Amino acid sequence: MENTQGKIITCKAAVVWSPEEPLVIQDICVDPPQKIENETERAFPRILGHEAVGMVESIGEGDKDVKEGDYVIPIFNGECGECRVCKKEESNLCERYHVDPMKRVMVSDGGTRFSTTTTKDGGSCKSQPIYHFLNTSTFTEYTVLDSAYVVKIDPNAPLKHMSLLSCGVSTGVGAAWNIANVKEGTTIAVFGLGSVGLAVAEGARARGASKIIGVDANSSKFEKGKLMGVTDFINPKDLTKPIYKMIQEITGGGVDYSFECTGNVDVLREAFLSTRAGWGSTVLVRIYPTPRTLPIHPMELFDGRTITGSVFGGFKPKSQLPNFVQQCMKGVVKLDPFITNELPFEKINDAFQLLRDGKSLRCLLQISKFLTK
Amino acid sequence: MENTQGKIITCKAAVVWSPEEPLVIQDICVDPPQKIENETERAFPRILGHEAVGMVESIGEGDKDVKEGDYVIPIFNGECGECRVCKKEESNLCERYHVDPMKRVMVSDGGTRFSTTTTKDGGSCKSQPIYHFLNTSTFTEYTVLDSAYVVKIDPNAPLKHMSLLSCGVSTGVGAAWNIANVKEGTTIAVFGLGSVGLAVAEGARARGASKIIGVDANSSKFEKGKLMGVTDFINPKDLTKPIYKMIQEITGGGVDYSFECTGNVDVLREAFLSTRAGWGSTVLVRIYPTPRTLPIHPMELFDGRTITGSVFGGFKPKSQLPNFVQQCMKGVVKLDPFITNELPFEKINDAFQLLRDGKSLRCLLQISKFLTK
Repeated sequence: MENTQGKIITCKAAVVWSPEEPLVIQDICVDPPQKIENETERAFPRILGHEAVGMVESIGEGDKDVKEGDYVIPIFNGECGECRVCKKEESNLCERYHVDPMKRVMVSDGGTRFSTTTTKDGGSCKSQPIYHFLNTSTFTEYTVLDSAYVVKIDPNAPLKHMSLLSCGVSTGVGAAWNIANVKEGTTIAVFGLGSVGLAVAEGARARGASKIIGVDANSSKFEKGKLMGVTDFINPKDLTKPIYKMIQEITGGGVDYSFECTGNVDVLREAFLSTRAGWGSTVLVRIYPTPRTLPIHPMELFDGRTITGSVFGGFKPKSQLPNFVQQCMKGVVKLDPFITNELPFEKINDAFQLLRDGKSLRCLLQISKFLTK
Repeated sequence: MENTQGKIITCKAAVVWSPEEPLVIQDICVDPPQKIENETERAFPRILGHEAVGMVESIGEGDKDVKEGDYVIPIFNGECGECRVCKKEESNLCERYHVDPMKRVMVSDGGTRFSTTTTKDGGSCKSQPIYHFLNTSTFTEYTVLDSAYVVKIDPNAPLKHMSLLSCGVSTGVGAAWNIANVKEGTTIAVFGLGSVGLAVAEGARARGASKIIGVDANSSKFEKGKLMGVTDFINPKDLTKPIYKMIQEITGGGVDYSFECTGNVDVLREAFLSTRAGWGSTVLVRIYPTPRTLPIHPMELFDGRTITGSVFGGFKPKSQLPNFVQQCMKGVVKLDPFITNELPFEKINDAFQLLRDGKSLRCLLQISKFLTK
């Protein structure tokens, strides 16, 4: 660890300059915490990334949550511990540090901590601010977060696995544990077998679900699913009837819980109807980039089925994640199958291509400044 | 009580012959329980009504739920006690005797127990079947119900008040107690101050809600509301902003619970948004006679707000209503303000007119064959 307290750091980061171009690995300047107050409309250049693990290099004045040398994971949905929501058990949607996908600056002072060392046209360090993303911005050797978004973890935890808890695995397992509260011997259906859907299955398996039905249009996802407890597979392309009718047949009336992990509102309706009338519960875990409203008639809510959205699996990050880390260390939830690829940081655009090609669940990017155990 | 076991009874009932005509009080024949199997598409003539109190005159062979002389209330949503739903705490939607507004015959054998003594063109007893309604058909001196729809009550209960527990008051109070689970010191908003909405308010008052906001376009509802604990009134006609924004202002961010008692989907959206992000809960208690689906975007479910339908306030009728009767007898819930009018059975069409004119919450119809205490 270098002594960088109060100093501007120059390091490498993968910067996105426009929606079309590949990410550029380049030197950037990273400021220590300071106050600036203007927010701007420009979203580029920006440093993306929100799943990571790291070590605290320095802290801002007065911060008591973490200290130098702590191992931490960044969380996009913070916890102030003091607002009305943080003080209640029911929700993890902190009023002050609630996730906001549009936010591009620090919540604390409205400023950025990144800037270019050279602009594209050439220039000097700090000539152009680089914006933050999801309160985290992890595609960089160094990043600065409001401490509300940092969770200290056990230094003995397997660090490369811990990056999975920043979002995907916590979101999926938490949806099963905290939002649906899956009970032993129950039945579930997971729509979409990406990392989050598989994490839902793994969470349900850990809770002792008796039947875990995976639904995906890509049959190659099914082999991976078996490792996470998926017992039955449905490829909608093979069906001549609606998915929910097939699931009702398999389960004698519907599953106890369904999880919508595709972000498609038509699939959402199938997921809703695939649960049992009386107490069926559908949990949404993905964003829905559509102007369409819920394709559900109000009277369909009178059959006892419920539908709930979940953010970060309902985990209160600072209060509850350290215990989840312990459970992962004990093997309650298996993390290894989620890391399908490892690449050096410089190959970040290759990692995206693996995702696009459906060849990867999570690709671990090794950043040279940080020694992974 | 007359000895009518196994005999056809002739008595008076208010029969609806078509959607347009007034109800006709006329003699009808009432069969004892027997088996017929054909269901028909015709919905008229039919005996409406589902809120009542009565005494058991005779029972079908093998029925062990009630005996002759028991005081009972009819319930449109039955409880068999044996299906998967009845055996779980989560739901009151019995798989076998679930409410079905389209049902016009007995569930047990698909037959009717009513028929005309004379047809409109003249004729003899039993020349035409009269259909059942909501498993109850209470606009008659005698009715026959599947015993799953009959709840025995304490004979010392104030009988005329008990008819309120057949639907309206149980639906409203139960929505507050069983579905929302309103807690002491919380805030609620009730959209629509008819009997059901006022019963929600009364239930929330009994639970110690600190603020009960009533919303109705008819300001005359507000005086009655005060008797049921309504603390704040909003008439949407007086507002220049959306109702939900007004409620957020009054409560510093939104109510803990809202109840939609109008059956209007635009009001449903206001009710949804009027609750607090994080844990706000909206309960639907009315039917929505519209082809429109929920005017809520899926992403709006990610703010921690939930929306749930409720049938009969979530009460399992046979298991839970006798205890609710006891609570009413102790004055936990006040029933008297709900009965605003009393008329003899023969004036049934006048009673409907009072409802249409907004001059009545509930009009008690006194049926001469039954002595009210």
